[in-house]
Amino acid sequence: MTPAEARKRFRAGLSAPTAGWAPGRTQANLIAVPADWAYEMLLFCQRNPKPCPVLDVTDAGSWTTPLAPGADLRTDLPRYRVWEHGELVEEPTDVVAHWRDDLVAFLIGCSFTFEWSLAAAGVPLRHIEQGRNVSMYVTDRPCRPAGRLRGPMVVSMRPVPPMHLAAAIRESSLLPAVHGSPVHCGDPAGLGITDLDKPDFGDPVDAEADDIPVFWACGVTPQAAVMASRPPFALTHAPGHMFLTDARDEQYRVA
Amino acid sequence: MTPAEARKRFRAGLSAPTAGWAPGRTQANLIAVPADWAYEMLLFCQRNPKPCPVLDVTDAGSWTTPLAPGADLRTDLPRYRVWEHGELVEEPTDVVAHWRDDLVAFLIGCSFTFEWSLAAAGVPLRHIEQGRNVSMYVTDRPCRPAGRLRGPMVVSMRPVPPMHLAAAIRESSLLPAVHGSPVHCGDPAGLGITDLDKPDFGDPVDAEADDIPVFWACGVTPQAAVMASRPPFALTHAPGHMFLTDARDEQYRVA
Repeated sequence: MTPAEARKRFRAGLSAPTAGWAPGRTQANLIAVPADWAYEMLLFCQRNPKPCPVLDVTDAGSWTTPLAPGADLRTDLPRYRVWEHGELVEEPTDVVAHWRDDLVAFLIGCSFTFEWSLAAAGVPLRHIEQGRNVSMYVTDRPCRPAGRLRGPMVVSMRPVPPMHLAAAIRESSLLPAVHGSPVHCGDPAGLGITDLDKPDFGDPVDAEADDIPVFWACGVTPQAAVMASRPPFALTHAPGHMFLTDARDEQYRVA
Repeated sequence: MTPAEARKRFRAGLSAPTAGWAPGRTQANLIAVPADWAYEMLLFCQRNPKPCPVLDVTDAGSWTTPLAPGADLRTDLPRYRVWEHGELVEEPTDVVAHWRDDLVAFLIGCSFTFEWSLAAAGVPLRHIEQGRNVSMYVTDRPCRPAGRLRGPMVVSMRPVPPMHLAAAIRESSLLPAVHGSPVHCGDPAGLGITDLDKPDFGDPVDAEADDIPVFWACGVTPQAAVMASRPPFALTHAPGHMFLTDARDEQYRVA
């Protein structure tokens, strides 16, 4: 299925996590904030490039992006979250009624993008094998603040067999625009995570006995910043329910 | 010489191009604009990441950066440029008298950073051998605009022997935070450059007979945007006269 076909289905109301969709095409996190918060959001992303690698920023009020000509950011994601003063108030499948003329939308790289490189290098992807959303956790590592925006780093976790660890690190390192190399491997306590079976977002995923938990910075981090910083209004994707762009993962590979 | 020692000499008034200084430490382009232009500058950088990879952004009025604790951005570069309405009005060795409380300073990656990787891989660096500033050219490739900011991409050029071309491309590709891979190799006409002996910034550099001109996106690009877009005020480094940070090039290497 092409990204345009997938977006058409989501526009028609289908809701599903997008891991494994549209092979080789770049998936993106969405966060839209009022224009008077846009500089702080862009600065927050610049200061925290591993969780928040920016792929595109729209002009205020625009719902289009050169990353996906013809797409409508208000309708083409499988599920959204609507935030008021840091509180989640709704999880609709479109945000046409919530859109505002002063919204600036940020598209942020997503680790689903490097999963194809991992798979091609032989790394098993447990959450896709098990038909689940990836596991995501709020960590005890603070992001570097920017003006009114602050919050903890969020990570995604994939259990990786030891023999595949080198390939997982190497392949993701070459895609810095979509979170790049892992931020942590092994004991979840190193990130302040107490129980891998209770992710803060997404689904728990079954690991094999000797799998090593590998943690990558996650584009849900701006949502954690919204929760901590309480801007009056924000729209985001629902975790794991990404925007499918037409961009090819290859164009973000540095070597 | 450490970066701190070099900065001390520049603070005392020494002026010199910084190619070859402080081995293995990251050099940066400087551009400071009034706060009401800061969002557009940051967006311009995000939309043009090859010429404008952002390493740090200061809070308004601040002349310090975590990239070089103890450094003063107003005094510690070897030479500055002062811009008013897009016109170069002065090239002083410090900007203490020109500083304003509303200035936001951007530190942008510099290709001098990857020269150490190129040298370590055996790539000869003609401009350093010849004791000259690197050659820089304004191209016919427009940057993607951001609000009021627009302008052409500027490139630096290094003549590379054919046997070293692969290493030059490979090594720079692994440092995307400091311009990454070349944007063009070979015929300068491909970038609208008519005469390599007449660079727009820096010095002409002598090439060997079979050297291939290799062009990297250059952090002087924001200065070209200042010239084209005419903000009321801006401070920048003088081309080739960079800010020496304490950061190590290695920390920007993706693999």
